[in-house]
Amino acid sequence: MEIILGSQSPRRRELMAGLDLPFTAVTIDADEHYPAELQGGDIPYYISRAKAHAYEGKLKEDQILITADTIVWLEGQMLGKPHDEAEAYAMLRALSGKTHQVFTAVTFVQKGKAMETVVDKTDVTFCELTDEEIRHYIQKYRPFDKAGAYGVQEWIGYIACTEMKGSYFNVMGFPVHLVYKALKQML
Amino acid sequence: MEIILGSQSPRRRELMAGLDLPFTAVTIDADEHYPAELQGGDIPYYISRAKAHAYEGKLKEDQILITADTIVWLEGQMLGKPHDEAEAYAMLRALSGKTHQVFTAVTFVQKGKAMETVVDKTDVTFCELTDEEIRHYIQKYRPFDKAGAYGVQEWIGYIACTEMKGSYFNVMGFPVHLVYKALKQML
Repeated sequence: MEIILGSQSPRRRELMAGLDLPFTAVTIDADEHYPAELQGGDIPYYISRAKAHAYEGKLKEDQILITADTIVWLEGQMLGKPHDEAEAYAMLRALSGKTHQVFTAVTFVQKGKAMETVVDKTDVTFCELTDEEIRHYIQKYRPFDKAGAYGVQEWIGYIACTEMKGSYFNVMGFPVHLVYKALKQML
Repeated sequence: MEIILGSQSPRRRELMAGLDLPFTAVTIDADEHYPAELQGGDIPYYISRAKAHAYEGKLKEDQILITADTIVWLEGQMLGKPHDEAEAYAMLRALSGKTHQVFTAVTFVQKGKAMETVVDKTDVTFCELTDEEIRHYIQKYRPFDKAGAYGVQEWIGYIACTEMKGSYFNVMGFPVHLVYKALKQML
């Protein structure tokens, strides 16, 4: 079986590589809109499947496609990718001193079989951040490609993240233990 | 103030570098024996202070020395660094399917001031591992320099670690959020 990772995220590609299984990475253009009534983990569940649907027509017999989506969920609201510095600032200010959830959904597709999706959740607690800390992070690390305006593996994750419950790799965007477990059953 | 990190661990040096504060790294030779009655977090507390004592005579006025020690604690027993493949196998077999604790102590020293030590704890849950998985890891990754015979940032951490409570960086050997907090008060 050939594994195809449908993600352009360098973090996901790096984590997938760490599983010591050969794979090919592709970029999938999918519509990432979702029904407004969806909450929490149901949002990445929906989007990871939309990504899978956008590519499944190209799948061959001996291939497994893996797609994923990650969201940051704070007190009933989704934080997506910030469009500019002001939005990144507002997100990090909102996360400061609170516990939020990171949900990642991973979808597996094989030609002629039903799609399988797993969802992982991690609780992440941030300490109180000063304005200076938030501004340093945004200016130096430019987190505009990251849900919730932060990368846990970067400076802000080092200084802000006082407690986590669940998988750290899920917060990075790819719950590798669930991916490994699912692939073990499929390969 | 000049920060001196007294550790030869590449993981600690990398994590310290991620705090965006300039530092120098030195190697400290200290006696790592500890009183047999010590339990859990009191063991790295004692050893990180022994490392600090071994170097503090060399400290100058404008320097802060940071030392650290990490242990893996499973059901009332300490797992140190394995001496050979058989010992590494025994440790990973013992960790399989269970929750253990990782304790890291970090000691801060300034000339003429009282030593300060902080201790962090993370609960780490491993899934059940097969013999094949344990042997693949030991043979490919050679975890002989690692407490408990594993590196959480390596393949075994990806596949085995289903749940964590506390700081991931603490499990890597350096609770960066506590180091940052302590340095913020000292600098």
